[in-house]
Amino acid sequence: TRTIKLAVIPGDGIGPEVIEQANLVLDAVLAGGDVALERTEFALGAERFLATGDTLPEDEQQQIAEHDAILFGAVGGVPGDPRLKHANIERGLLLKLRFDFEHYANVRPCTLFPGVESALRDPGAVDFLMVREGTEGPYAGNGGTLRPGTPNEVATEVSVNSAFGVERVVRYAFEAAQARPRKKLTWVHKTNVLVFAGSMWQRIVQTVAAEYPEIAVDYMHVDAATIHMVQDPARFDVIVTDNLFGDILTDVAGAIGGGIGLAASGNINPDGTFPSMFEPVHGSAPDIAGQQKADPTAAILSAALLLDHLGLGAEGDRVRDAVRADLATRGSAPRPTATVGAAVIAAIPAR
Amino acid sequence: TRTIKLAVIPGDGIGPEVIEQANLVLDAVLAGGDVALERTEFALGAERFLATGDTLPEDEQQQIAEHDAILFGAVGGVPGDPRLKHANIERGLLLKLRFDFEHYANVRPCTLFPGVESALRDPGAVDFLMVREGTEGPYAGNGGTLRPGTPNEVATEVSVNSAFGVERVVRYAFEAAQARPRKKLTWVHKTNVLVFAGSMWQRIVQTVAAEYPEIAVDYMHVDAATIHMVQDPARFDVIVTDNLFGDILTDVAGAIGGGIGLAASGNINPDGTFPSMFEPVHGSAPDIAGQQKADPTAAILSAALLLDHLGLGAEGDRVRDAVRADLATRGSAPRPTATVGAAVIAAIPAR
Ligand SMILES: CC(C)[C@H](C(=O)O)[C@@H](O)C(=O)O
Ligand SMILES: CC(C)[C@H](C(=O)O)[C@@H](O)C(=O)O
Repeated sequence: TRTIKLAVIPGDGIGPEVIEQANLVLDAVLAGGDVALERTEFALGAERFLATGDTLPEDEQQQIAEHDAILFGAVGGVPGDPRLKHANIERGLLLKLRFDFEHYANVRPCTLFPGVESALRDPGAVDFLMVREGTEGPYAGNGGTLRPGTPNEVATEVSVNSAFGVERVVRYAFEAAQARPRKKLTWVHKTNVLVFAGSMWQRIVQTVAAEYPEIAVDYMHVDAATIHMVQDPARFDVIVTDNLFGDILTDVAGAIGGGIGLAASGNINPDGTFPSMFEPVHGSAPDIAGQQKADPTAAILSAALLLDHLGLGAEGDRVRDAVRADLATRGSAPRPTATVGAAVIAAIPAR
Repeated sequence: TRTIKLAVIPGDGIGPEVIEQANLVLDAVLAGGDVALERTEFALGAERFLATGDTLPEDEQQQIAEHDAILFGAVGGVPGDPRLKHANIERGLLLKLRFDFEHYANVRPCTLFPGVESALRDPGAVDFLMVREGTEGPYAGNGGTLRPGTPNEVATEVSVNSAFGVERVVRYAFEAAQARPRKKLTWVHKTNVLVFAGSMWQRIVQTVAAEYPEIAVDYMHVDAATIHMVQDPARFDVIVTDNLFGDILTDVAGAIGGGIGLAASGNINPDGTFPSMFEPVHGSAPDIAGQQKADPTAAILSAALLLDHLGLGAEGDRVRDAVRADLATRGSAPRPTATVGAAVIAAIPAR
């Protein structure tokens, strides 16, 4: 029996509800096999901050680092809660984990499953993979403010991009494209305006592309990319872009791919130095929390990516097949969170 | 008779074709009235650069500055043209005009006209106004590169935001919302990640909001804004955001609002110190240039915004009414550029 040490961070709002279902699906798909999950739960997020003032204590981060993978729900309190005014759970917890654990490949597949109604009139066969840089760029946290709170304030945000950081994610994206049948890679930036970072991205994409002659590479400005994603998403295969453009484009992808309730993601450290982290793209949605209204599918599909990452691709496929079967028959009436989880479990194909 | 001095910059690719039609529409709508247009054409863009090496000579910029308004087509050569490698027409011409002429309110209406098929399955009644900051933020051109071309390169892009710059565009957006029946303003940023610029935007929006008690204000992160724009665009009334987010969101808006061939924009200097500039959101599309394939509607609607800006709102309305009538009956077969222009002119209602 292989034992996998799984750190679970359910988080706030709908996080615990959807993670509960993802965990049940993991148990079901692994049942009767020779893989055992050993889970440790970490109570982190806005609730923890309100209770203890902690965001991510060093010793807990160290404990998390000793796991094989992380399953993450969603974090964030009620918007406008004055007690959270100076918390910044996003930077102090979620982004800190992504940065410290070198999750440089933030992968977000966008597949329009049969039976799912897209917001688009005629989406076509949507099946692409977004690879978003996860450890630098505009998310670096560099910047500052001069004369804060005055009419003469100047606030800066510095996007910091390293050849090291860009090359490793670009390489990851080429490998991902190489492993897919269409072998297409679109890189997205805004080279005509952000000329310093844009030129470096361009140089690195061109250099790495020379090692992958089979891959058809094209470039789009980020604004044009959104148009193509809305007007003809089926054209994309693998997309690679920076941290901020990736944040925006993956939400566009979520919207056209049947909604953010289906959008899964993996924060991957391909080197294996740190545990990778799997999380639904959606947030904590405190307005519907605790009501069994959230769709756990994004969390379940994130658990499938976790299985893939741990070398259990066959089990990941069984989860995706179950989700696909459930989506094909679910109809449009909303179902409780646990009902969706149970339906997916019931649809898991035998080994 | 009032004489309006109009600087015309047709530009490259399809720019001259669509501007030709916009000019014909301007002549038609003003015919028989007491407003005369006095036009000066400026040959600027990639073609000019290739012919003379000039991007925007100082004396021409001064001449342009002496006009009442600018009608701008599109600039940019064939992508990948090696002779344009170091040109950057975008920064040296288009953005230079926007920055030097203090076009701080980049306004881009998004209306889904009857008869126009949206990319969305169920768009609803789409009619909102994007107000994009036009003179600072990530477009400031600050940044640089260390060890360029090496594996240790570091490239930065600095978003520079001033309270002065943010307040003036936020104020413009509140005024715009005040003048519209729904009186809603959505401001968009990424305050949870870009905390320095985000906090300043937040403080300024809140301060200005206090002066506009009738306006309902809400906030969205830029990623969430794209989801709402794809899933329920009818919810928006006026949106205000920074230069880069505005660039991206206006293309999403273009895509859902019937395509970029209909998207108009005004680069407004509300203070009147410099001429405002009106341009279709689309680019120069060199691949279809000179073939009468481009839709001139975006340029024509930009000319309508120009009329509004010059205090000729009734004439602007007549142009929009004509476009609306043409769109309602045009069908889906593509028509030559000049045919669309002629149809719009034929549909201009009498005074
Ligand atoms: C919560 C936020 C910090 C995060 C991000 O911006 O990366 C989220 O939007 C995402 O896409 O995972
Ligand atoms: C051409 C480019 C510099 C420009 C911009 O980024 O502002 C364009 O995309 C636009 O939206 O007007």
